[in-house]
Amino acid sequence: MPDPGPTNRSAPVDVPVHHLIRDRWSPRAFLPDPVDGEDLARLFEAARWAPSSGNSQPWRYLVTYRGEPAHQRLLATLNEGNRRWAGAAPVLVASYAQVTFPAKGDRPARPNPTALHDLGMANALLAIQATALGLHVHFMSGFDQEAVNAAFPPPPDVQPVAVFTVGHGGDPQDLPEDLAARETAPRARHRREAVVVVDGWS
Amino acid sequence: MPDPGPTNRSAPVDVPVHHLIRDRWSPRAFLPDPVDGEDLARLFEAARWAPSSGNSQPWRYLVTYRGEPAHQRLLATLNEGNRRWAGAAPVLVASYAQVTFPAKGDRPARPNPTALHDLGMANALLAIQATALGLHVHFMSGFDQEAVNAAFPPPPDVQPVAVFTVGHGGDPQDLPEDLAARETAPRARHRREAVVVVDGWS
Repeated sequence: MPDPGPTNRSAPVDVPVHHLIRDRWSPRAFLPDPVDGEDLARLFEAARWAPSSGNSQPWRYLVTYRGEPAHQRLLATLNEGNRRWAGAAPVLVASYAQVTFPAKGDRPARPNPTALHDLGMANALLAIQATALGLHVHFMSGFDQEAVNAAFPPPPDVQPVAVFTVGHGGDPQDLPEDLAARETAPRARHRREAVVVVDGWS
Repeated sequence: MPDPGPTNRSAPVDVPVHHLIRDRWSPRAFLPDPVDGEDLARLFEAARWAPSSGNSQPWRYLVTYRGEPAHQRLLATLNEGNRRWAGAAPVLVASYAQVTFPAKGDRPARPNPTALHDLGMANALLAIQATALGLHVHFMSGFDQEAVNAAFPPPPDVQPVAVFTVGHGGDPQDLPEDLAARETAPRARHRREAVVVVDGWS
């Protein structure tokens, strides 16, 4: 897959990075078009091959489709700011971390301190795969964890961490004015030197 | 970058995924060759453009180079099983999560519940960028967090989560026999159906 060249939402990188990383971003505007079932399977396949502590694979996913009652119930758990746009996307997913290593033989279950980290790795691979398929993913931490658990009682030690939309990016002009402004604002990050140190913390 | 075709360490995927996801894996055998400085910068640039809750960017990195005292000190914090192989790689990095949102105006600092998740996203993008450059990354949770903090006193609320090697993959036959066996064992994950549910948990 050759580099298609930067778009107006490509990250303004300091040094070149792979185009799937440069071009991944989190839109609020989504087209109503459904996501192809095979494409959706590829997203979760990408997540499945993430690395994890002791190959524990602590990621779990609950998928809902727009128009289904489960989608309405999951959408209702989002903060108001997210509910304003997230319902337009055809797929809404809750991602969960299993926060314990399961009991094994005589050894009882014990906390998995990197479960959330490893879920994040799986979610990022899922987002890269989405970008490769011309899809977009937008992760949200703004939702009511207890409401998700009430609506979809999960297995023991499985906690919702990030809810995300999946779909085809839409036209920012179809968003309410304030959201359209955020959608087209320059993308920004801390300087690399602010997050990377060598040999020690000053 | 065209798909180079599967290698004997490519993930045995059920449905096709992008080759950078399929071909990312975590070796124990590394060549002694150094990592080009510009390539290393690209890894952290990839991490920098990860998404995060409220664009909080809670990832931090401490980089050490083989042959430097800081590398020895970080290597010494690894579990014995990891120390057996990780010292051969030319770069050893500690990745950290800033687990609070900083104070802002009158609002005091408060916990960031997705800091580890967001660090995981940054680390996965870093690993994809490494794969694109022909490099390998191996994340480890097996290290002594308190020893890392004693060796490299971090800023407040910044916690080490995963330590990782960066380098060029080596020959499994150069590893001790038990590690060589693990290095060439079939790659395995839970079935996709075991980690993805639709509409609710059964």
